[in-house]
Amino acid sequence: MSEAPRRGTASDATPPKPPIRDSLVAAAFQLFLERGYEQTTVDDIVTLAGVGRRSFFRYFPSKEDVVFPDHERCLADMTEFLSSGSDDDDPVERVCDAARLVLRMYAENPTFSVQRYRLTRKVPGLRAYELSVVWRYERALAGYLRERFAGRRDGTLHADVIAAAVVAAHNNGLRSWLRSDGQGDAAAAVDHALDQVRDTFGAGVSGGARITPEEPEDVVVVISKRGTPMWRVVREIESSLRED
Amino acid sequence: MSEAPRRGTASDATPPKPPIRDSLVAAAFQLFLERGYEQTTVDDIVTLAGVGRRSFFRYFPSKEDVVFPDHERCLADMTEFLSSGSDDDDPVERVCDAARLVLRMYAENPTFSVQRYRLTRKVPGLRAYELSVVWRYERALAGYLRERFAGRRDGTLHADVIAAAVVAAHNNGLRSWLRSDGQGDAAAAVDHALDQVRDTFGAGVSGGARITPEEPEDVVVVISKRGTPMWRVVREIESSLRED
Repeated sequence: MSEAPRRGTASDATPPKPPIRDSLVAAAFQLFLERGYEQTTVDDIVTLAGVGRRSFFRYFPSKEDVVFPDHERCLADMTEFLSSGSDDDDPVERVCDAARLVLRMYAENPTFSVQRYRLTRKVPGLRAYELSVVWRYERALAGYLRERFAGRRDGTLHADVIAAAVVAAHNNGLRSWLRSDGQGDAAAAVDHALDQVRDTFGAGVSGGARITPEEPEDVVVVISKRGTPMWRVVREIESSLRED
Repeated sequence: MSEAPRRGTASDATPPKPPIRDSLVAAAFQLFLERGYEQTTVDDIVTLAGVGRRSFFRYFPSKEDVVFPDHERCLADMTEFLSSGSDDDDPVERVCDAARLVLRMYAENPTFSVQRYRLTRKVPGLRAYELSVVWRYERALAGYLRERFAGRRDGTLHADVIAAAVVAAHNNGLRSWLRSDGQGDAAAAVDHALDQVRDTFGAGVSGGARITPEEPEDVVVVISKRGTPMWRVVREIESSLRED
């Protein structure tokens, strides 16, 4: 999905000179780790990267933005991915797949992602910046779902709740991977989390999970009090089948 | 739940002088509405309120904080409410009730809440501040659920997803009320949204909604493909009952 160069993975004998933008990110993180984020100025970063101050602001509006250099691209990829789907796509599956684009961006470069995770936890300003990024992802997912659920009863409510659940599940999987210092399988952790959201809200469980808008179903869900006699359960299933 | 004075509702012939903190909030909002948020300084606010500059910073760490004067108290109320529960409480019901404390704070003073909503949408810095407040509410709810689900498989995942769903549902209801300029029944809108979350994740539907951790249940949920012969459904129910 991504065409960004993988930093730090080049193993050629004569590696090509990295683009200015990548040099700025590398220099910034080297200084953030050595001195701390607050103690590093944009001037320090451009000096280490060997470029002019104006180059920095050509790529990044502020010092905070250099900490999250790939989110704008990822947001654009997500928007593109969501808008390129068809009406046949299961909406919940689609937003889960969209969330996986974010995971892929993190997993592309584990070292960088883990360093940033540690930095973000220490600096309140970066934490606030990250929250605003997460919020934009969530609104992208919710916007897609609102369109898909347009005209349905409680469509915007369902869209907002499912988008929030997808983001929370994704972040739960992502953060356990980051906390493990990028060891283990990031995709598996996130898949596991998203699978449970899909099982809760996906088309196949709409009877049990009322938050999913009504859709043509190929399953029947019956909820009975424990201890209900079997004949009553059978009658309930039969009458539920007749209603369709 | 709240003991804060209701601003603007005093109708006595000789109203008591409002406390300094309330005067600062009132002065700040009058100026934000007249001049805009960015164009108003802390000096402007204290001059209008007739107090010294140090009084402002005694109550509010920054100009942003005066826009959200009651969230700290509400967060404290929420934490207190969650920690004062018992193990008999349904965890999902409990976090829904905790979220209603936030709604109550907004509904206490519709005019102020609607003004703030409009202001927050216009000023990116306030939007970021609000996101950090929402995040703190969500972490309070998730922290409570993580404790309640401790030791269960995927307990933190379920806690995070349910907390996010509760916050999203609450905010969906709250914002439709705010967008209607505080007309209509705020509590009814939020109750409707939270009811659907409870129906999705609450104890009664745990079979259908797998995200709910296993708990002793008084219901049996069976999901069958439409067209499955009845004898097979009955066998499935019987075998599911035997497993307990």
